[in-house]
Amino acid sequence: MSETQSNPEHDTHEMFQQRWSPRAFDADKPVSKQDLHRCLEAARWAPSCFGDEPWRFIVCHKEENEAMWQKLLSCLAPKNQEWAQHAPVLLVACTHTVFSHNGQGNRWAEYDTGAASVSLCLQAAAIGLVTHQMGGFDADAVRATFHIPEDVKPMAAIALGYRGKTEHLDEGFQAIEKAERKRKNLADITFFKGWDV
Amino acid sequence: MSETQSNPEHDTHEMFQQRWSPRAFDADKPVSKQDLHRCLEAARWAPSCFGDEPWRFIVCHKEENEAMWQKLLSCLAPKNQEWAQHAPVLLVACTHTVFSHNGQGNRWAEYDTGAASVSLCLQAAAIGLVTHQMGGFDADAVRATFHIPEDVKPMAAIALGYRGKTEHLDEGFQAIEKAERKRKNLADITFFKGWDV
Repeated sequence: MSETQSNPEHDTHEMFQQRWSPRAFDADKPVSKQDLHRCLEAARWAPSCFGDEPWRFIVCHKEENEAMWQKLLSCLAPKNQEWAQHAPVLLVACTHTVFSHNGQGNRWAEYDTGAASVSLCLQAAAIGLVTHQMGGFDADAVRATFHIPEDVKPMAAIALGYRGKTEHLDEGFQAIEKAERKRKNLADITFFKGWDV
Repeated sequence: MSETQSNPEHDTHEMFQQRWSPRAFDADKPVSKQDLHRCLEAARWAPSCFGDEPWRFIVCHKEENEAMWQKLLSCLAPKNQEWAQHAPVLLVACTHTVFSHNGQGNRWAEYDTGAASVSLCLQAAAIGLVTHQMGGFDADAVRATFHIPEDVKPMAAIALGYRGKTEHLDEGFQAIEKAERKRKNLADITFFKGWDV
């Protein structure tokens, strides 16, 4: 179980080490409303350009509204449904693509929404929950199912819950789950001089 | 000094309460290389679609390379230069717009880069630093100055340093600095049923 970073270069707050994206969720351990709200609250306090707060979250809490949760599950890519069906909460992070104050396109809408979503994931990690964001979902189906307005764009589905047992996953997913958590070297993503110098 | 959230609805980890975006930086208090690297390290561990890690950071550390820092400062909107000139570190968060594995457009490049940037800001908050992201900068000038490749897009400038005295700001900025930190209500950004139900 890959719960530790395999190639850290510098110390960070433990929250960043705790957050990762497993596929093994515990279907028998529901998430309390209070904990769900604490995760959403962290997203709420993300920074945004012009303070526009473009993030919008569709929240499907199986315990509260199983029909809605099932609808979202069915919008996920089949391969994601295999494991996400055990997550007691499924969300879709959406972004309001135009500024509220002038209706013009918001160049930072997706960027800011990504910040809100990872805040949700970090807060989840801080209280013992796990999250897994997915790009693999049918955005048109999500839009139709949840009546998403034209100027709002579904960006990512998010599974939220408690960690389950790896051995409940199929073999392929088990291998991924056990693989080392790695990242590019810091030198590959930081430019202290510029690109071609 | 607006260092507390004025309308929290639920408890979150203190890191989310500590992070905010002041304009008053302490020009006389440099940021150590170690602390700068710890912030970049947090960004490094953000989640990303296909594990592409599309974030790239131009890093201008005044103490290490004042000429480069000055170049980036001059790319900021004049109104941002007024206060950002006191920040000992200036960065630009950029995003690699195509997937490394197939060269196709990455629908999540900006979303994932926003996650990396806010991770940097949260880690900064955790070690007593402050950050302020800016959309107000000349992206073309940044591209030309730092020789940014065509498939990389500058998204946001980031000022990083220690908090300075509010009274050093001009009156307009002082008023903003002292204003309450507020957000939309959680009910306005969460959809537990869908949009029109």
